[in-house]
Amino acid sequence: MRLTFLGTGAAGGVPFYGCTCPACERARGDSRYARRPCSALLESGETRILIDAGLMNLHERFPPGTLTAIVLTHYHPDHVQGLFHLRWGVGDTIPVMGPPDSAGCADLYRNPGLLRFQVLRKFEPLNIGPFKLTPLPLIHSKPTFGYAIEDTGGERIAYLTDTVGLPSRTKCFLREWRPVDLVIDCTHPPQAPSPGNHNDWDRALATIDEIGSARAWMTHLDHSLDAWLLEHRPTLPQGVRIATDNTDVTLAG
Amino acid sequence: MRLTFLGTGAAGGVPFYGCTCPACERARGDSRYARRPCSALLESGETRILIDAGLMNLHERFPPGTLTAIVLTHYHPDHVQGLFHLRWGVGDTIPVMGPPDSAGCADLYRNPGLLRFQVLRKFEPLNIGPFKLTPLPLIHSKPTFGYAIEDTGGERIAYLTDTVGLPSRTKCFLREWRPVDLVIDCTHPPQAPSPGNHNDWDRALATIDEIGSARAWMTHLDHSLDAWLLEHRPTLPQGVRIATDNTDVTLAG
Repeated sequence: MRLTFLGTGAAGGVPFYGCTCPACERARGDSRYARRPCSALLESGETRILIDAGLMNLHERFPPGTLTAIVLTHYHPDHVQGLFHLRWGVGDTIPVMGPPDSAGCADLYRNPGLLRFQVLRKFEPLNIGPFKLTPLPLIHSKPTFGYAIEDTGGERIAYLTDTVGLPSRTKCFLREWRPVDLVIDCTHPPQAPSPGNHNDWDRALATIDEIGSARAWMTHLDHSLDAWLLEHRPTLPQGVRIATDNTDVTLAG
Repeated sequence: MRLTFLGTGAAGGVPFYGCTCPACERARGDSRYARRPCSALLESGETRILIDAGLMNLHERFPPGTLTAIVLTHYHPDHVQGLFHLRWGVGDTIPVMGPPDSAGCADLYRNPGLLRFQVLRKFEPLNIGPFKLTPLPLIHSKPTFGYAIEDTGGERIAYLTDTVGLPSRTKCFLREWRPVDLVIDCTHPPQAPSPGNHNDWDRALATIDEIGSARAWMTHLDHSLDAWLLEHRPTLPQGVRIATDNTDVTLAG
């Protein structure tokens, strides 16, 4: 299976509108450092699953028939805003699976257009093509799922945004399930004054340590974390990497 | 004053996702025929007002300090979806004026970021730089205002989307106010089976006739109207034009 980071940014992305910090200026000068809305593409054979829909050009990027399904972590606008346009069309419907959230976002449920929303239940696996995705509750300001993703070859990756820490049942599941790769919310620099709904650097590292995956990818970075990384250039623990837009994780057992 | 059509499309725009009608195929082959979310830029001297915020690249298109204000017709996603990203930033706030609508759209009111939402009242003029904008109630599925726009030189333009017909008080106001230019919702081909919330071709022409402006611009076109125009090539009444993206109306008295 292959998982490609389409976006690795927090709400607002990098560059952050109007910000002149070193990280934002670097991203303005070199688009390889830009971070778009946090999302990923999961592929194996003919199956293509979009995880989160915050990119605003989905209707141009994914012509009809190119997505098997869209799986949502939650209904905050930076994770669903690309659906507002994508929904209006003709042809085959697009399944959109996500956590139970009666509010959804704006009028997506009332005017779904091509989208067919389906509610997932925590810890009840969903099969799409060669993938089994198990929804894992996270800790966020809206109902939010991470996903334990396994393919028929037994390869395993856990995708966990947006969250601050992990609920104990999710943590227990992951410690037993033992993903090879862990993708984890790492939004703020260490000890941010009020991390709120997202991990800071220290909590992300602690979570990686607790789960014990061989490799881990930090994603959902705020511009302030990129600026902190530029200033401090910390040594990363073995196997831990900072995700960037358009890089991929290819698993081979 | 100058008014530039940034977008002239209905929800979904042209090309419509997955559609292979002649109008959609034409727009795919030649982007001059594409229609983006209905919106316009109003300029005079240093004052730049964005009317509606459905374009999804506003944060890239309008660097900080380049917009004096954003004026909304209503809070449907295709008219505000560009605000979801634009709001996250640092620096000067951006005034966003619109009709009274306690729901707004998704979490824009709760998490306004840089945006400063202000509620307008019908027929109570708003002054921004050299412009006086008078909010005019329209007939739509959400509280919606059109705007009677006048500059200090006495030039007048009425911008009326989204609407099906006009409330009688708005119609009376406009007949007395006598705009030189009228921009009017014209979404559907004639006698669309259920025009719903928008003018069809016949009703747009009837409204232009009732207001009696010297010139009129049809906007907010659905792909089905573009296809109908391609097939029927109707003769337009004198002074009536079909707006296209990136064309402008320059008024000189």
